[in-house]
Amino acid sequence: MRKISKADLSLRNLKKLIKKEFNETDKLIKNQINSDVNRIPKLSKHIINLGGKRLRPMLTISCAKMLKVRNKNHIKLAAAVELLHTATLLHDDVVDESNYRRGEKTSHTLWDNKSSILVGDFLLGKAFQLMVETNSLECLNILSKAASIIAEGEVLQLVETNNINIRKTNYLKIIESKTAALFSSACEVGGVVSGANKSQKKKLFNFGKNLGTAFQLIDDALDYDGSSVKMGKNNGDDFFEGKVTLPVILAINSANKKEKEFWKKVFNKKTRNKTDLKIAKKIIKEKDTINKTLKLANQYGEEAKQIMEGFENNPIRDALIDLVDFSLIRNH
Amino acid sequence: MRKISKADLSLRNLKKLIKKEFNETDKLIKNQINSDVNRIPKLSKHIINLGGKRLRPMLTISCAKMLKVRNKNHIKLAAAVELLHTATLLHDDVVDESNYRRGEKTSHTLWDNKSSILVGDFLLGKAFQLMVETNSLECLNILSKAASIIAEGEVLQLVETNNINIRKTNYLKIIESKTAALFSSACEVGGVVSGANKSQKKKLFNFGKNLGTAFQLIDDALDYDGSSVKMGKNNGDDFFEGKVTLPVILAINSANKKEKEFWKKVFNKKTRNKTDLKIAKKIIKEKDTINKTLKLANQYGEEAKQIMEGFENNPIRDALIDLVDFSLIRNH
Repeated sequence: MRKISKADLSLRNLKKLIKKEFNETDKLIKNQINSDVNRIPKLSKHIINLGGKRLRPMLTISCAKMLKVRNKNHIKLAAAVELLHTATLLHDDVVDESNYRRGEKTSHTLWDNKSSILVGDFLLGKAFQLMVETNSLECLNILSKAASIIAEGEVLQLVETNNINIRKTNYLKIIESKTAALFSSACEVGGVVSGANKSQKKKLFNFGKNLGTAFQLIDDALDYDGSSVKMGKNNGDDFFEGKVTLPVILAINSANKKEKEFWKKVFNKKTRNKTDLKIAKKIIKEKDTINKTLKLANQYGEEAKQIMEGFENNPIRDALIDLVDFSLIRNH
Repeated sequence: MRKISKADLSLRNLKKLIKKEFNETDKLIKNQINSDVNRIPKLSKHIINLGGKRLRPMLTISCAKMLKVRNKNHIKLAAAVELLHTATLLHDDVVDESNYRRGEKTSHTLWDNKSSILVGDFLLGKAFQLMVETNSLECLNILSKAASIIAEGEVLQLVETNNINIRKTNYLKIIESKTAALFSSACEVGGVVSGANKSQKKKLFNFGKNLGTAFQLIDDALDYDGSSVKMGKNNGDDFFEGKVTLPVILAINSANKKEKEFWKKVFNKKTRNKTDLKIAKKIIKEKDTINKTLKLANQYGEEAKQIMEGFENNPIRDALIDLVDFSLIRNH
């Protein structure tokens, strides 16, 4: 029997507290992907089933429930957040040319790039329709801004591909945009529909932002950690895709001449092979930059926890604090 | 000197009546594409400049002005409609693998598919932000639905690619979704921000729907009309992309055995060449299906005109009626 990790337990605990809402959200998501054009529900179902743990909608539901939401708008927003996320996954897999997600073939591999692009657009439209149903212009404002910021981060990541001179600030801007922006919005809109005040909304936003940044930093660290299975894609994916992430940036910052030559050569190549990855991992291990990345993730995580502790004592609040730990220790 | 056609004149006339608003919209669109990530404004500017005559935002402005709009929301919506359209063009060019638009290289040819997909997503987000600025949930509802319907039409088109047995109803569903849905929404939201009543909004919607359908039918007819330059892409594009449009559907419906064999063979091939197009055009000419397609377009156009005549006498109303003629006779 598989050992249940501490990480799994903290996620299960939160899920238990919001089980009813989580299931309602799931049902609502599945209702949205209906269409007479068969390929749309088929492809959508495939990617949604691969979508993983539904962290983002869990955040929306939890933040709203923690603040005693009195209607069903958090369900609609949670579904909208997940649909928005799913649309970006579909487009990302095309952009990254990823053939696998969580060990399963990606949608554009089973169908084609064209279908993934267009079904992504369909889901984006559906996400906005759900937001409209809440009658909250504030939520629409927050999430439409997030949609642009996510795309902006993805373009910046694309522009910086293979650039070994990428500045750490640009790297952090990329992960804040492509990942943290949806985490922060997911939390904030949960507050909005619960009638949170300005200070509470700011706290929720910052909790999500710090959690999302920590989450992405861990993801980037795990990409070079041979001992672990990455939650999302496959080990070494970032490297093969030419994404220069923090473990590499830090290794380059303290590289000797020979190492600098290696990084330059390897990221200037059109494709990188397994031998390249092996050498990269060896250098990264010597420089201890996985741990340095994890340390930075921990700082963001600690910040997230402190912010959440600013809310009144409540089982969901405590579960959200534990969720930060889940994000930090997952699969380690 | 180039002869000014009747079509050009009718467009100029409408443009003159809404010149101030048209320029404000143009300025607003250009403001929206700003970003620290240089590739975003560069690529956006390229596609927006190729965008053509800005028919859709002109419809929003005109419908609003005809109904005596009293604020600036029609400018915001017109810009939103154009940004939404631009986003779909970026994605369409990737999906269709089109190398040229209006004689210029397409964005994904100058940059890459990835940039076109992501900048499209960025512009979609910006379009929704502008809609939010109008504070009109009704407009957000109309346009978010349109966004899904457009994508749905594009997926249906993709599924029906190379299918010579496509039903005429499915063909009409495709063009109603991928083209007419944005025309009808562009008109309807113009009414909404002017405080139009239910019956007026319905009329505007139906005017746009019929105009958009006529517009696309003409586009599809021109693709096989060697004597004219198509407004959008290049002559024969639909054929090369394997899109079975009305001139072909009608030719297949009355095909003899030999012709049927030709259509089957030619659309079963992975790619079609210029000789194939020549034969296709010859059959289409013999069957007179371009004229049959134009005739159907005219019926939709007449319907659009009749609906518009249901509004009170007004210079903009008359210019919109003339615009239908422009759509029907453009480049003929």
